[in-house]
Amino acid sequence: MQSGFGFANQVFGAERLLLERMLESLGNPSVQIVLWDGRQARQGGDASGARMIVRDRGALLKLIADPEFWFGEMYTSGRIDVDGDLAEFIETIYRCLPRATPGTLGKKLLAPFSDARRNSLPKARSNIHHHYDIGNQFYRLWLDREMVYTCAYFPDPTMSLEDAQVAKLDHVCRKLRLLPGETVVEAGCGWGTLALHMAKHYGVMVKAYNISKEQIAYSRQRASDAGLKNRVEFIEDDYRNIQGKFDAFVSVGMLEHVGVENYPELGALIERSLKHSGRGLIHSIGRDYPSSMNPWIERRIFPGAVPPSLSEMMQIFEPFGLSVLDVENLRLHYAKTLEHWLQRYENAADSVSAMFDPEFVRAWRLYLAGSLAAFRSGAMQLFQVSFARSGYNQIPWTRQHQYLS
Amino acid sequence: MQSGFGFANQVFGAERLLLERMLESLGNPSVQIVLWDGRQARQGGDASGARMIVRDRGALLKLIADPEFWFGEMYTSGRIDVDGDLAEFIETIYRCLPRATPGTLGKKLLAPFSDARRNSLPKARSNIHHHYDIGNQFYRLWLDREMVYTCAYFPDPTMSLEDAQVAKLDHVCRKLRLLPGETVVEAGCGWGTLALHMAKHYGVMVKAYNISKEQIAYSRQRASDAGLKNRVEFIEDDYRNIQGKFDAFVSVGMLEHVGVENYPELGALIERSLKHSGRGLIHSIGRDYPSSMNPWIERRIFPGAVPPSLSEMMQIFEPFGLSVLDVENLRLHYAKTLEHWLQRYENAADSVSAMFDPEFVRAWRLYLAGSLAAFRSGAMQLFQVSFARSGYNQIPWTRQHQYLS
Repeated sequence: MQSGFGFANQVFGAERLLLERMLESLGNPSVQIVLWDGRQARQGGDASGARMIVRDRGALLKLIADPEFWFGEMYTSGRIDVDGDLAEFIETIYRCLPRATPGTLGKKLLAPFSDARRNSLPKARSNIHHHYDIGNQFYRLWLDREMVYTCAYFPDPTMSLEDAQVAKLDHVCRKLRLLPGETVVEAGCGWGTLALHMAKHYGVMVKAYNISKEQIAYSRQRASDAGLKNRVEFIEDDYRNIQGKFDAFVSVGMLEHVGVENYPELGALIERSLKHSGRGLIHSIGRDYPSSMNPWIERRIFPGAVPPSLSEMMQIFEPFGLSVLDVENLRLHYAKTLEHWLQRYENAADSVSAMFDPEFVRAWRLYLAGSLAAFRSGAMQLFQVSFARSGYNQIPWTRQHQYLS
Repeated sequence: MQSGFGFANQVFGAERLLLERMLESLGNPSVQIVLWDGRQARQGGDASGARMIVRDRGALLKLIADPEFWFGEMYTSGRIDVDGDLAEFIETIYRCLPRATPGTLGKKLLAPFSDARRNSLPKARSNIHHHYDIGNQFYRLWLDREMVYTCAYFPDPTMSLEDAQVAKLDHVCRKLRLLPGETVVEAGCGWGTLALHMAKHYGVMVKAYNISKEQIAYSRQRASDAGLKNRVEFIEDDYRNIQGKFDAFVSVGMLEHVGVENYPELGALIERSLKHSGRGLIHSIGRDYPSSMNPWIERRIFPGAVPPSLSEMMQIFEPFGLSVLDVENLRLHYAKTLEHWLQRYENAADSVSAMFDPEFVRAWRLYLAGSLAAFRSGAMQLFQVSFARSGYNQIPWTRQHQYLS
């Protein structure tokens, strides 16, 4: 039987060796791989029964050369496909990926410092424009009604995404212990939902910073529509230009874009922006250990993104007289949020296809499914870190106030 | 008037300069200092009106030379005294102490690694013997009924120390989500209170390790008295010799004695001691930034003690596939606990004096008052860190279960 393939089969024999070596470097995930001509390049397969289809030899060679980058590229262009549940297929791979060993941690820790200008002010604008200015209309297709593009909080896992996003806003506000008349500065405000929620429901005055032109314009319109223009100021500027002293500092989903090399600057900024009684909260995607971003996500979806480990995050607080009061890991809440987003995205596939080319549609599907897999498998975490000034004693006695409805 | 002091006064003039320079190095705390002959060496004074009395010139010179060590030595011997509230006097000083600046953090981070054998197995035994084997009778004079020598948890700050220590045991057990029949390993079990509480109220089997001979003997007697000998095994051995796989790992008040240089060994031990579904909790004194222990406390009270910052603590988890789920800072609860201990210690002063020499009585007063000041001022923190294996998904959906009574 085998002899029928002749020379072509011999070439495939060499490729199979390389493929096996590549899979070994990925921790030998139990995945099934099918080639362009229907041959099975790899037996097995995860419990979901999903399988990868490689549509041409060039795609196979690129995948072998650098799977973490080229899987994304080839999937986007359709030269690689996944038959079955894409998120489960990727989760199988994430769960096998060898972790950074203690010996390589030092190198990984240093890696972010190798390009200190990655998130310089102009670069940051270009990075953020890349992701957030592709059209509010697009995000409206699959985000919740309030346009919250960060991890929701599901006190009950069966609740709707809309309710869970509001619950997240309140969870953040409770942790900040906002009082009417207080002032809040928000670094990276998305489409303005948290800023407006704090002003409307907690009676605070908010200055909210964002360098995404489209998001700021949208946020200002919302403030105007809601009659909150005198309580919420949306400022199109980099967080590094924040001026003034505030009762609270909050940042939800911006730290991922800051880069570890800029944490000391952020810590110093927070310290000088807080009143004596000031407190704050940072909500960010993170990792269980220092590691760089998946190179495809970093190149195609989130330029400049680095999700920190907790030891890295502590570099914001420890040198600057800030005391960490509370850290909550909401990883499973982000997995649940992504389940909703992916489902809505698929439901809106026709509308997305009408707005963008097929490659865009596939890239975003991969990004959402891959993120879901990352949070399910523990490759990514979601940290909420609450803090106050070191030695400040008017802090809550327990965390019970976070759980009163 | 001044001329009457003559030559002696000139000498004092030089000493005053040195004293001022010393106070400057301490951040210029507003403290009043009175000399052996009644002269005021320093005006001012903190709000409590406490003042330091230096009883001879030798004590003054030693204080000037190295205040962080010699204040303790001279206070212990009675050559320096504090007239007024000792804890408030020390808090005034702690609140002024210059923090490690970002530039010096690196050095401080590295400092613990300079003596990697500080907590070698034999040294650890000698260090622990120094503090914990001075007589259970002594601790019984001022600890709670259950002999818990770690930070209590006061859901209501007016509750009794006895109730707050039981609340702490339950807070830890809730965070661990113990189920009847599960197995727990405890590293550093004190007088056995938590181990017995877990077995009695949560139905688990416990192996509890401690290298303090007196504490182990006491714990075994308690297990026998309570009819829990078949459910709790007290093992007189170093935590580094823990064997087996458990559903939960818990350590309350031991990490302070481990030393940052031994965290990777501890992390590897935890990783290999946990079942796939295992989880754990470490409760430890900590700091807002890496810094060494006060040298007097380290020499006289707790040899080998190093309270870690969170970034240092993360070295237990990040290299070993462990995921931090929750961090709670209970600093004010330790201040409250120490208020109770200090009050009880003073109430038992006659009994302590009957057991030990006056220097011991003063040293322990200073240690308790100084610790109270450290937690009130933010010089010390108390971290409870909960964790599970990275990517394990049968974790609680929220933290609400910690707050159901």
